[in-house]
Amino acid sequence: MRKISIKDVAKKAGVSIAAVSQILNNKGQRFSEATIEKVLQARDELGYVPNSAARNLKGRHKRLIGIIVPSFRMPFFADIIQSMQASAPSDVNLVFLGSTDESLQDAIFSLVERGVEALVFGRHIPNRAEVNTFLKKRNIPYLVLDQNADINAHDMVQTNEFTGGSMAASHLMSLGHRDIALILPNNLTDNMRQRRAGFLDTLSTANLTPKAIITTTLSKHGGLAAVHQLIQSKSTAAFILNDEMAIGVLRGLAYQDIKVPDDISIIGYDDTDYAEFMIPTLTTIAQPVWEIGETALKMIIRRLDHPNLPLQTEFFDVKLVIRESTGPVKNTKGNH
Amino acid sequence: MRKISIKDVAKKAGVSIAAVSQILNNKGQRFSEATIEKVLQARDELGYVPNSAARNLKGRHKRLIGIIVPSFRMPFFADIIQSMQASAPSDVNLVFLGSTDESLQDAIFSLVERGVEALVFGRHIPNRAEVNTFLKKRNIPYLVLDQNADINAHDMVQTNEFTGGSMAASHLMSLGHRDIALILPNNLTDNMRQRRAGFLDTLSTANLTPKAIITTTLSKHGGLAAVHQLIQSKSTAAFILNDEMAIGVLRGLAYQDIKVPDDISIIGYDDTDYAEFMIPTLTTIAQPVWEIGETALKMIIRRLDHPNLPLQTEFFDVKLVIRESTGPVKNTKGNH
Repeated sequence: MRKISIKDVAKKAGVSIAAVSQILNNKGQRFSEATIEKVLQARDELGYVPNSAARNLKGRHKRLIGIIVPSFRMPFFADIIQSMQASAPSDVNLVFLGSTDESLQDAIFSLVERGVEALVFGRHIPNRAEVNTFLKKRNIPYLVLDQNADINAHDMVQTNEFTGGSMAASHLMSLGHRDIALILPNNLTDNMRQRRAGFLDTLSTANLTPKAIITTTLSKHGGLAAVHQLIQSKSTAAFILNDEMAIGVLRGLAYQDIKVPDDISIIGYDDTDYAEFMIPTLTTIAQPVWEIGETALKMIIRRLDHPNLPLQTEFFDVKLVIRESTGPVKNTKGNH
Repeated sequence: MRKISIKDVAKKAGVSIAAVSQILNNKGQRFSEATIEKVLQARDELGYVPNSAARNLKGRHKRLIGIIVPSFRMPFFADIIQSMQASAPSDVNLVFLGSTDESLQDAIFSLVERGVEALVFGRHIPNRAEVNTFLKKRNIPYLVLDQNADINAHDMVQTNEFTGGSMAASHLMSLGHRDIALILPNNLTDNMRQRRAGFLDTLSTANLTPKAIITTTLSKHGGLAAVHQLIQSKSTAAFILNDEMAIGVLRGLAYQDIKVPDDISIIGYDDTDYAEFMIPTLTTIAQPVWEIGETALKMIIRRLDHPNLPLQTEFFDVKLVIRESTGPVKNTKGNH
């Protein structure tokens, strides 16, 4: 694909190359607002990216890749980020961007205008069609993590979330639990939906449905707030859709003097670096976060080097990590 | 100060403006390596920044501010980041950069070349003089958080770390503890040095020195690894220089069946969002992280708007948050 040049912008706007250069380089004060407008419009329509000398003059400049995450406070994303940083080759710089649904599109545009060469989306993309058109036009490759599994046209890294949910159910059932609660965030991303589906599907093989389904906010405080309903449900075990919420549940149960796992078993999801430091340590489903980050970065760099590669997709397996927070059901607790 | 223009670069390199524009805009293939070299050298010597139309065409473009942190995994920085994001005005975009000592300078250069308008340093700057010269030359303002308190020539946000350390000592002494351990990371940043100084100074007012000084890595695992020495020291209380390490200490003590606070009192520093979810909840010194982030961002934006403002410095107070992990000394435990 031919890259749009400053000449193309000048031609479309009907002005000189020097005028375009000055306007786009912030020295266009002497031009009329109408001329400036024409140039910016031509630039946007053609998708011209005034990037620096980065791509051709290797060794002098580094390539810049932008990583977009929903939140820096969620340990899962903090770990993804850290693994990318640690594994970035020496000719690549990474910048990270957290953004709300509202600000995302705008943030992308701003980065691209400044010469970001590729993007990795660790979060759901709300204005998907628009973002895709914008990036395609400018030949900016992007890769999506599994929050966007329903996008099929892009390089993608996924983990086997359905199996993860299924493993959580099997583990609790194998310990004799039949009264099992499910604690979910209010808004489910696509991968969380699969997690839930795997869990419910496996329960159903034993003719079980959750004893209670409790929705709350996706945070430690959300987990804490769900404890009252969890206790009332008289469940002997609970699958909590991520470790952050599970940490809140553990704390809430301790306030009520309910012992984990003697009175109730708790299993989380993610195996964030806090899981093994909880008291009791948290049984959870581990995603290979470090590998996910490394692989995603490798794939997007490969795409930059070889724009015409076929679609790249990488699947990762999850695994059950049994720690202190799950144990056998006590018959006296079953209430049935 | 007059901004360096593309014309200046052309003049210095002895080539046409069009040539500079093409070379810097990645369309310079037809030029000799020597010409390219001359242009890049002129650009670097003059400090020319080919930024986009951002500054003058307000309303169309957003200003980009880069925030540099040591790690995304440390909750303190995750919180700073989140507070900046949440409070960023609509005409500002933020990008975040984590970096090692080795990669920092390079990362800064890359961001600036791409038109970042200002920087906030949440980490120690290793090649300080060089970084300063580079940024000054390009009129890129920057602000430092208190990891760099020894830089005096820049806008700065600090917290009263000496008082924080002092409060930790006073709290433990007020509970009757005299055998107090101090757990430190191997490498102390400038603010941590002040924290330690405040702690030691206050102990000394009661003619005390730490029962043990234990150094370890700045992480949960580091805290865990320090527990053996802590137990051997027969201290009745410990001040741990940050919450992350304190979480590891709590976990390690639980493995040895040592009760907190009955057998030993533990106090951390930072009041990260995990502190109140620990079992027991963690007594700590709270920094107003949210305000620190908001204020730093406001200050750097003010600097962008008014480059000639006098030096801005903001100090924040810390406070003691008493939770479950500290309690009165038991006389039977004192060993003296």
